[in-house]
Amino acid sequence: MTTIQMIEAAATRIGNRALRTPLLSSPFLDEIAGRRVFVKPECLQRTGSFKFRGAWSAISALEPEVRKRGVIAFSSGNHAQGVALAARLHGIAAVIVMPADAPRLKIDNTRAYGAEVVLYDREREDRDALGAALAEQRGLTLIKPFDEPQVIAGQGTVGLEIAGQAREEGIEQADVLVCCGGGGLTAGIALALEARAPGLRARPVEPQGFDDTARSLKSGQIERNVRLGGSICDAIITPEPGRLTFPITSRLCGPGLAVSDEEALRAVALAFSRLKIVLEPGGAVALAAALFRPDEIKGDAVIAVGSGGNVDPDIFSGALSRYGA
Amino acid sequence: MTTIQMIEAAATRIGNRALRTPLLSSPFLDEIAGRRVFVKPECLQRTGSFKFRGAWSAISALEPEVRKRGVIAFSSGNHAQGVALAARLHGIAAVIVMPADAPRLKIDNTRAYGAEVVLYDREREDRDALGAALAEQRGLTLIKPFDEPQVIAGQGTVGLEIAGQAREEGIEQADVLVCCGGGGLTAGIALALEARAPGLRARPVEPQGFDDTARSLKSGQIERNVRLGGSICDAIITPEPGRLTFPITSRLCGPGLAVSDEEALRAVALAFSRLKIVLEPGGAVALAAALFRPDEIKGDAVIAVGSGGNVDPDIFSGALSRYGA
Repeated sequence: MTTIQMIEAAATRIGNRALRTPLLSSPFLDEIAGRRVFVKPECLQRTGSFKFRGAWSAISALEPEVRKRGVIAFSSGNHAQGVALAARLHGIAAVIVMPADAPRLKIDNTRAYGAEVVLYDREREDRDALGAALAEQRGLTLIKPFDEPQVIAGQGTVGLEIAGQAREEGIEQADVLVCCGGGGLTAGIALALEARAPGLRARPVEPQGFDDTARSLKSGQIERNVRLGGSICDAIITPEPGRLTFPITSRLCGPGLAVSDEEALRAVALAFSRLKIVLEPGGAVALAAALFRPDEIKGDAVIAVGSGGNVDPDIFSGALSRYGA
Repeated sequence: MTTIQMIEAAATRIGNRALRTPLLSSPFLDEIAGRRVFVKPECLQRTGSFKFRGAWSAISALEPEVRKRGVIAFSSGNHAQGVALAARLHGIAAVIVMPADAPRLKIDNTRAYGAEVVLYDREREDRDALGAALAEQRGLTLIKPFDEPQVIAGQGTVGLEIAGQAREEGIEQADVLVCCGGGGLTAGIALALEARAPGLRARPVEPQGFDDTARSLKSGQIERNVRLGGSICDAIITPEPGRLTFPITSRLCGPGLAVSDEEALRAVALAFSRLKIVLEPGGAVALAAALFRPDEIKGDAVIAVGSGGNVDPDIFSGALSRYGA
């Protein structure tokens, strides 16, 4: 179980290898939201998303004898790149297992960060069996994307930074909106805020139709998504909350929010024009909620985490042409 | 004449009103450049460019009795927005004089930051006479865009931050490439580095065909540009180096560099895909030089200032469609 001590230890292990991302703001966004809006741009983080923090935390927490044999991860997205770079900076091997039909750009980027990419056929091969065989043969340690205490601790370092930055801005009470997939980032931030900024409350934000965490928080038990595809916010679509993350978010988080794909794309365009940052649609849902769900938020300030910026240029340009000021 | 003491005093007056922008990096950019590349993203600065620093510095340095009557500036670009917001945060009036044919978006943004925009007809009205009459009537103080000691001191705070951040990264010797128009940012950074990081050397970067500063540094006297329009890097086109900035850059800077519009747009696309920041073409020329002029740069690391991000969505999308990975 992740604790505040583990989060602080993760921050120490990470040191200056991860970027301490700033808090950004714009009077134009404040005006739309009707309150002060602050954005924590984890898109600027190494590999373009917060995932590098959790990957570094988990890899650096391994026993040296175990770590040197290498790590393995299943991901075609931000987790893959985070694990690949964190492993390379540790000087160890990383094997990333991806579906053969993953976008070429994601495969190339993951390889460029130094990982060995193993492709499998979604229709005919069992990913978990393939990964287990590889891990067994080569003594690799599996780095899970969210349901792993040291990964949650690493993502929690975002919350430590928010606690300090909110204090500098004079914010004592506020909702902290977090783009939520499996809940690793949300849970980590919630734990850090509980200990270091108890007036701040973490709240998950999801795409409409994929609000498994919001529904689970409401019902008090793990609820699944009906669909697993069909949202432009692909980076944060998961079947259900994690077995480790849900007890944390359930104890600490305020109600979840959900936004439409169109609202996410409008937030992408506003982050471009007003903050000069690149967000992927899934990384913009928290900002979208901050801007377009004013009645569901409390307080005169709101903090939104921009969780990642690994977006296809065509999708980005499409958001600008439709919603760019 | 601007001194290091004035730069440090400006940093104190600015306090946390300006963002301490981070240093960003990506292994992909290192590979292109053949050395470590660090980018100081002043596009993330308030109002989307470094100009807010100089405006704050100049306005905060005025005598209170003078300041409260308000300020005036001639600009349709980043300086206008910097002055407008710095004035508003001081609770004073700002009058911004712009040509009537300036882009509607820039006029609207400047107004939205709280300034009074006065439009003039480029063909039939004398801008300076109009401004002088307004200043006289209302007791406004002119805030010049670069040739003003306190403006140079404000821009120099970028150099103070670079000196500290380079030390944290272990960089002792490196070229610091700076997008250069009138030379206020370049001169301020050069002064700060001279005092606080003497192993770092500021070098101006300009668009090809508008390299007045590079040619002036070479000849030892102020040289003018032949043309004043026709580059996509409009934010950094000026007729000639400033009377105050040139003696500073001439004493302290290394040789100037120049890049093509196409190289600037490629840098815009790479800053999007690899750093997740939005640069305007004129704000990307230093990064372009870092990436595409490896033989003209010394050392195993280079620092490039990304000076602004106020770019039209169509131009940005055009850069992505042509050069986006």
